[in-house]
Amino acid sequence: MGFIDSFDHWKVGDNLDFASWDSYPIGFVERFPFSDAERLRYGETSHPDIAPFHHDLYRGVGRGRFWVMEQQPGPVNWAPYNPAPAPGMVKLWTLEAHAHGADVVSYFRWRQAHFGQEQMHAGLNLPHGNELSPGGREAREAAQDLTALGPLGPSQQAPVALVFDYEGFWTLDIQRQGASFAPYEAMLRWYEAIRRLGQDIDIVRPGASLKGYRLALAPVLPIVTEAMEHAFAEADGLVLFGARAGSKTPRYAIPSNLPPGPLAESLRLRVTEVSSLRPGVRKPVAGAVSGFAERWTERIEAKSEILARFADGSPALAGDGQRLYAAFWPEQRTLEALMHYAAERAGLTIQPLPPDVRRRRRGEHVFYFNYGSEPWTAPEGEETFVVGRREIPARGYAVSRPVA
Amino acid sequence: MGFIDSFDHWKVGDNLDFASWDSYPIGFVERFPFSDAERLRYGETSHPDIAPFHHDLYRGVGRGRFWVMEQQPGPVNWAPYNPAPAPGMVKLWTLEAHAHGADVVSYFRWRQAHFGQEQMHAGLNLPHGNELSPGGREAREAAQDLTALGPLGPSQQAPVALVFDYEGFWTLDIQRQGASFAPYEAMLRWYEAIRRLGQDIDIVRPGASLKGYRLALAPVLPIVTEAMEHAFAEADGLVLFGARAGSKTPRYAIPSNLPPGPLAESLRLRVTEVSSLRPGVRKPVAGAVSGFAERWTERIEAKSEILARFADGSPALAGDGQRLYAAFWPEQRTLEALMHYAAERAGLTIQPLPPDVRRRRRGEHVFYFNYGSEPWTAPEGEETFVVGRREIPARGYAVSRPVA
Amino acid sequence: MGFIDSFDHWKVGDNLDFASWDSYPIGFVERFPFSDAERLRYGETSHPDIAPFHHDLYRGVGRGRFWVMEQQPGPVNWAPYNPAPAPGMVKLWTLEAHAHGADVVSYFRWRQAHFGQEQMHAGLNLPHGNELSPGGREAREAAQDLTALGPLGPSQQAPVALVFDYEGFWTLDIQRQGASFAPYEAMLRWYEAIRRLGQDIDIVRPGASLKGYRLALAPVLPIVTEAMEHAFAEADGLVLFGARAGSKTPRYAIPSNLPPGPLAESLRLRVTEVSSLRPGVRKPVAGAVSGFAERWTERIEAKSEILARFADGSPALAGDGQRLYAAFWPEQRTLEALMHYAAERAGLTIQPLPPDVRRRRRGEHVFYFNYGSEPWTAPEGEETFVVGRREIPARGYAVSRPVA
Repeated sequence: MGFIDSFDHWKVGDNLDFASWDSYPIGFVERFPFSDAERLRYGETSHPDIAPFHHDLYRGVGRGRFWVMEQQPGPVNWAPYNPAPAPGMVKLWTLEAHAHGADVVSYFRWRQAHFGQEQMHAGLNLPHGNELSPGGREAREAAQDLTALGPLGPSQQAPVALVFDYEGFWTLDIQRQGASFAPYEAMLRWYEAIRRLGQDIDIVRPGASLKGYRLALAPVLPIVTEAMEHAFAEADGLVLFGARAGSKTPRYAIPSNLPPGPLAESLRLRVTEVSSLRPGVRKPVAGAVSGFAERWTERIEAKSEILARFADGSPALAGDGQRLYAAFWPEQRTLEALMHYAAERAGLTIQPLPPDVRRRRRGEHVFYFNYGSEPWTAPEGEETFVVGRREIPARGYAVSRPVA
Repeated sequence: MGFIDSFDHWKVGDNLDFASWDSYPIGFVERFPFSDAERLRYGETSHPDIAPFHHDLYRGVGRGRFWVMEQQPGPVNWAPYNPAPAPGMVKLWTLEAHAHGADVVSYFRWRQAHFGQEQMHAGLNLPHGNELSPGGREAREAAQDLTALGPLGPSQQAPVALVFDYEGFWTLDIQRQGASFAPYEAMLRWYEAIRRLGQDIDIVRPGASLKGYRLALAPVLPIVTEAMEHAFAEADGLVLFGARAGSKTPRYAIPSNLPPGPLAESLRLRVTEVSSLRPGVRKPVAGAVSGFAERWTERIEAKSEILARFADGSPALAGDGQRLYAAFWPEQRTLEALMHYAAERAGLTIQPLPPDVRRRRRGEHVFYFNYGSEPWTAPEGEETFVVGRREIPARGYAVSRPVA
Repeated sequence: MGFIDSFDHWKVGDNLDFASWDSYPIGFVERFPFSDAERLRYGETSHPDIAPFHHDLYRGVGRGRFWVMEQQPGPVNWAPYNPAPAPGMVKLWTLEAHAHGADVVSYFRWRQAHFGQEQMHAGLNLPHGNELSPGGREAREAAQDLTALGPLGPSQQAPVALVFDYEGFWTLDIQRQGASFAPYEAMLRWYEAIRRLGQDIDIVRPGASLKGYRLALAPVLPIVTEAMEHAFAEADGLVLFGARAGSKTPRYAIPSNLPPGPLAESLRLRVTEVSSLRPGVRKPVAGAVSGFAERWTERIEAKSEILARFADGSPALAGDGQRLYAAFWPEQRTLEALMHYAAERAGLTIQPLPPDVRRRRRGEHVFYFNYGSEPWTAPEGEETFVVGRREIPARGYAVSRPVA
């Protein structure tokens, strides 16, 4: 499911041949602390990173193999508000899952029940009989596009890794210290910000090898084990840690050298005081990344390079070479600036995308998805479009591949 | 009581000689999802339809005979805020009950208790002794006006019927599908909108004969039984159904011909998809009635006349001759436009009233009630005023009858 | 603790040699119904009356002797948001406690725990070892200032008494009648308003002698016993009662002569109706004190002098000579006007202070505390500054005494 962190998916995945999940993009909008404006904006399409984030997560959990077991084919019955998806979205979500590596997209359900508790949950067919529902007609069209595409190759390694640690989430959930320090929110917002730069992302298990990645992000990683420390030490690319990284030992104590504990030596800094901030409090940050901290700030002492500072001169972003530490929770725009800085420093090829458009490569194919209400035209290039065209309609997609 | 739908009042009424209810107009403001602006506006007077709606309901339940068993005579003690009624309101509410057909208005309570749990609930007399409270003095004045009026005739049949089905309410309460689809809210808002056009209303039991009514409204009627279908088929006037009419069988299933089930044949339409909308989402509607849908929209296929459409061309209001179906929840102003359209189409004589003024006939008498803070002058006419004058003071009333 | 009214502190104090309390000025901001703007403004300093109010209360409970048992030395771990105190505040709070008469200020805790449930609660020392935390360094500086000041004399009687009755609080909590009639809120807001005029305040037990006070305030005193009535009758100065004073007998009934019961004779008025008002309702008041009532108004009949009236002419503030009764809950600015009127009428020397600055005398020393973010300069005078200077920095203090 989406936004579920109540068990360690990595451990469960160890015993599975492939992973699967249930994708209800619109219903899941309710599970995330979006602003009211975002809820209105994405109410009939979902946010363009909710399904992709979980595709990337479950692809990781399945070691490259995953299914969508239940795809939302229309309005569901379990959220406070259950709008019909905007026309085109059932088709879009289907292609999107395959772009992120899905082997199968199965819909829940085949026919809408005409009785019982779930009778208001849409199906591919209307209740009573074999007449396709609006979503069912879109599923048929998606199948036609997939047939036209032919077999898709395996997903290659992405340039960016996002480290996702369930145990760390639980560590912070036990004692938030600041009510708004929400681990899953940080994960999705970092994912969104780096994807807005046109990047593909692998969501990886903490301690997994980071070789081959240009950039590794650890937005929320309170516990850093020896294995993780080793993976970071061996990483090929830039590693950026969010606040509270290394702040707890695996036995839930403050490290004897103060946070960031095992990372203190390579980052050359320590945290002496933390401050959680109520909504509305903003702390200016200026330097290589400028903007505002909200929710969380730390007082750190750093011997490494100080890249940005708070208004009182205290370091906000520090590190050396390939290791950076952000001593605050960045506001959304500041997070975008931080991701841009990290992507440039990591040497990534940046392709900025509008808020509602995303890009994803699978094998030789490049997919563009437009969640917005206006058409969007992909930049000119050498590729050829095998599904759709360079001008991508609202709530539509296109797929290209290199000219042979 | 007000806004109570936990039992079927019609069935209870079958065994009663007359019905009665407890009218706490100010306290009941808390029980209805008014906007903050309305709560402030009506905080010391109540909304001008809360007591009348229930008078009309209990008159129906009592088959023409009803009492007010407990009339609020001043501030009560059980709401979060218990303001003293604005001067004049106790008197106004008393006359209003009689205008709507009450045989008796009894106040709770005779004397304010000076001890115990209810000691902050006002009475007609102050605690300790026989000194009239402010409300008690108004009750005395109301009695004088009623004496001056003399015996009031029985209530005649109104031109408008509002169908009120408790079982249908429960049906939707079990599974709202949209959190804001509130049956009682729809009932009161439709009642308000048609009353703003100067109409008297009978609230009728589902399945009761609709003969003699120029207009019958069914804002919320998910279950349509054979008896109801028969009553609609035999109705003399226009019948307007709200969204979700006929959407469930009496066994709580989706009808085999899809909603509106038994009404599909006469309305010549079917519903293929429904969408519940979060607050803030508005869907334009244009045609014979223009404005916005909120909360709920339906995708319908109609062979009947399409009177208004959504922005994507899908029908929003459809029907033939004397049967109309609204496939959405109308915003307040749109609801007013819809009621105006229905009233005109039904051939009613429309007398538009300001937001705080209402009109009610009982026998030969016409009552005007002014809940507002400014005087209001009734239009010139042939009648003679037997209580008050044509210029009706703030929080006041006047009663006229035809020149003999 | 702060804002605790669950037991009668006066009775507990009878058996103690001295009183003590735990002062968490920032965490306590959460316990009081501040506006959002105030919460942002005072988030890192606390409101300038929270700690002082409780110092004055516990000094009274301890009959002149009190300690701060636990002083917050940095961010705590138990509020929804736990910001680090603004630099200077730990030092300020320490001096402030002594200015209000504290014999001891002890901090919780000596060293931050590195494990267990409280590991995120700051201490004077960092976890692991003997290195002072930011707050610990401020505590050391405060100790240096206190050493420089030398022994402070006992607290003298203040010119203003604030009567604080726990039993009366419970009386109103049982039946609020208006959800926003919050006794503790009234107490702190009256205290704030009179302190903004440069006054020292003793918080006194109901029934205690009021001799020697120029002004006695009883914001919330629903039960007036014989002993209390006697103390008011013997008071030397002006006594101002808030609404609902004397409204209940000790057996929780309405007095036989109506409220204000035992005070009716001296105040020459009675209350015939009360009205609790929802947020947003404002009732104009005009006269010796002008502004707005909110939350609560009373309809009173007064034979005493009427000093201010509601818009309908009904008395809002009435009394004779040394006894006044306010028949409403004043809005904040109106409360300030009421306190100003009372202070002038009582013949107090008024020194208006800005919102974030407070003044407190202990023996011959006068302390100024600046909670604000800008420096503030004390008015020119004959005194000499023994700690700090006349220009008081943001989040700083100064202490003066008369030129010898």
